[in-house]
Amino acid sequence: MSLQINRQVVLASRPNGKPQANNFTIAEAPIPAPEDGQVLSKTIYLSLDPYMRGRMNAGKSYADPVEIDEVMSGGTVGQVIESKNSGFSAGDFVFGYGGWQEFWLQDGKKLKKVDPQLAPISTATGVLGMPGVTAYTGLLNIGQPKKGETVVVAAASGAVGSVVGQIARIKGTRVVGIAGTPEKCEFVTEELGFDACVNHSRQDFAENLKSACPNGIDVYFENVGGKVFEKVLPLLNNFSRIPVCGIISSYNATQLPAGPNLTPLLMRYILVKRLTFRGFIVWDFDSQEEEALTQLSNWIKEGKIRYREDIVDGLENAPEAFMGLLEGKNFGKLVVRVSDEPAG
Amino acid sequence: MSLQINRQVVLASRPNGKPQANNFTIAEAPIPAPEDGQVLSKTIYLSLDPYMRGRMNAGKSYADPVEIDEVMSGGTVGQVIESKNSGFSAGDFVFGYGGWQEFWLQDGKKLKKVDPQLAPISTATGVLGMPGVTAYTGLLNIGQPKKGETVVVAAASGAVGSVVGQIARIKGTRVVGIAGTPEKCEFVTEELGFDACVNHSRQDFAENLKSACPNGIDVYFENVGGKVFEKVLPLLNNFSRIPVCGIISSYNATQLPAGPNLTPLLMRYILVKRLTFRGFIVWDFDSQEEEALTQLSNWIKEGKIRYREDIVDGLENAPEAFMGLLEGKNFGKLVVRVSDEPAG
Repeated sequence: MSLQINRQVVLASRPNGKPQANNFTIAEAPIPAPEDGQVLSKTIYLSLDPYMRGRMNAGKSYADPVEIDEVMSGGTVGQVIESKNSGFSAGDFVFGYGGWQEFWLQDGKKLKKVDPQLAPISTATGVLGMPGVTAYTGLLNIGQPKKGETVVVAAASGAVGSVVGQIARIKGTRVVGIAGTPEKCEFVTEELGFDACVNHSRQDFAENLKSACPNGIDVYFENVGGKVFEKVLPLLNNFSRIPVCGIISSYNATQLPAGPNLTPLLMRYILVKRLTFRGFIVWDFDSQEEEALTQLSNWIKEGKIRYREDIVDGLENAPEAFMGLLEGKNFGKLVVRVSDEPAG
Repeated sequence: MSLQINRQVVLASRPNGKPQANNFTIAEAPIPAPEDGQVLSKTIYLSLDPYMRGRMNAGKSYADPVEIDEVMSGGTVGQVIESKNSGFSAGDFVFGYGGWQEFWLQDGKKLKKVDPQLAPISTATGVLGMPGVTAYTGLLNIGQPKKGETVVVAAASGAVGSVVGQIARIKGTRVVGIAGTPEKCEFVTEELGFDACVNHSRQDFAENLKSACPNGIDVYFENVGGKVFEKVLPLLNNFSRIPVCGIISSYNATQLPAGPNLTPLLMRYILVKRLTFRGFIVWDFDSQEEEALTQLSNWIKEGKIRYREDIVDGLENAPEAFMGLLEGKNFGKLVVRVSDEPAG
C-alpha cells in the first residue's frame, strides 16, 4: 500500500437545529486495500445535497443515520486507483456513495461507470445523477404536466428544481420558478428559460406569485415547504398534483412552528380542490433511471437543458458549504472538488 | 293545482360555528306545476349528509352555497305526482336533489328512477346512492386496497364508512373501523364484520388503534380529520394511500386550532413514508356510477354488504337531526321520512 493517508470528514456530534462547524471533524485513516470484488477509488467530486441533514440525526428516516465518528455519507465521482473487480480498471471514472473522504473502497456492484465523453464528470452528481433523475421521475410520474398547464417549482435554481422546470418547459407548460435572490431569479428566467421567477424573500412574494400564475397552478414541485408552500396553496387549481420531494425549510427545525395549526386548512384544500400530494424518493423509480439519464443527456446535447454548478474547493470546506446549502447560499448544484481531475 | 301547500325548510341565517335551530325556518309555498320536460314529485325520504354544512356558508366551496331564504339543498327520494316528461309517469319512484321540502319540481334529466324491487327505496340516499358510490369509487380508485393490507376507516358506522369497510373486507384486507361509542363499535364488528373497531372518544384511543393495526396502516379512508387523523398518521406504512372524502371534525370550526402548526410534520410523513393524499368528490367518478351501483346491489343480495338507517320522522325535525349528524349523534345513514311510503 501507499503511504498516503485518507482524509475524511466524520460526524463529531449530532446537530441541534442548524449544523455547526463543531459537528464535523477532519480525521485521517489509512487507505484501505481492495479485496475480491472491490474497487478503490480516489474522490474527485463530492456531492452535497439537502438529504444529508437527515442522516445527521439519530433515528432512521428513510435511510439509516450516520453514526458518530463515522464518515459523512454522500455521492462521489472518482477515478479507480486499484480494482479487484473485473468490471473496473485503474483509470476508470466512477460514481458511488463514497462519502466525505479522499479515497473510498466499494463493492463494484455498487459503482457505476461515468463516461467523460458524455458530459463533464461532475454532472454525475447533478443533472446526470441523483438530482436529475429525481426531477425527471418526480415530475413526470407524479406531477404529470400537461401542455398549457402551469408548473411552479420551488428552489428553482437548485440541482433538482432547475431540471424540473426545464423538463416542464419542454412539455409545453408555463413554468414559474421560486428562488431567494434577484440573481437566482434572473438566472432562472434568462439562462434556464422559465417563463417567470418569483423571489420568496420579498414582502410582496404572495402577490407576485399570483401575478406570475394568472391561470393558477396545476403542478407544484415541492422542495421547500414552510412559508413558500403556504403562499402556493391558495393558488392551486382543482386536480393539482404536488410531488413532495423535500421540505428543506424544516430540516433544521428544533420544534414545530407556532400556531395556529394549519393542518385542517391543508386538508380542506385537498378535499375541496381534489389535490394529490405524493411523497417520493428517487429510488422509488429505480426502473426508470436509465430512461431518465438517456433522455436528460439528449436534452443537454440539444441545448434544451442547461445546468449550473457551484464548485467549492477542498474537502475541508465541505462542512461550511453544506451549512450554507441548508440556507440557500449555494447557487446551482453544490459540489466539492476534493482533488483535481486528471489532465485530459 | 291542488290546494295543498308545500312545506319547506329554508336557510334563515348563516351559522357561525355549529348550526343552531334559528338558522332554519319552516316556510310554506304553493305547490308548483310542471312545465314541459319537468316532473313534480312528492318527497318521501330526505337524505341528510355532512356536505350540507358547507352549503350553509357564504362563498363557493365545490358547489354554490344555499342562499338566505332559499330551500336547503339535499338528495330526496319521492314519488312522481305529475309528469310532463315522457320518461316518467305518475307513481314512479325517483331520486333527485329536491331539497328539504315536501314537493319538488325538477327537470326530468336530473331525475333517476328508483326500482322498489331492487331494495327499499330509502337506500337510494345511502348504500345505493351517493354515499355508496362515494365509498366504492374513493376506496377502489384512490385507496387501492390489496389483499392482506390493513384498511382503517373513520366514521365507520356512518353512511360512507360502513360501505368502505365492507368493500375493503370483500377485497381481502384487514379492516379496522373508528367510531365514537361502544354501541357503534359493536355494530361495526358484529354486524358489518370489520376485524376490529376502536372508540375514538376513549383516552386510550391511540394505543388501542395501534394494537388493532399490528402491521400498520396501508389505506386510511378519511372522513373525519382532527384528532383522529393525528393518531392515525404515525401508524401509516410506506406507500399508504389516503382518500380524503371529508373532514367533519372541522366543518363547524370558526377558527383554526391552536398551535403548534403540525403541517411540517404532515409534510415530513408524506415525504419520508411516500404517502399519497388525494381529495375527491363522488362526481369525479361519474363514469363509474353504474358499475358501482350494480356491484353494490349484488353484494347486498349476496349478504356481503349490510346497512343501517337512522330514520327521523317529519320534515320539521330535519334541522335538529342535521345538527346531531355533525356531532356524530346519528347511528347509520341519517334519513328524514318526510311522508309515508305508499302501501305496497
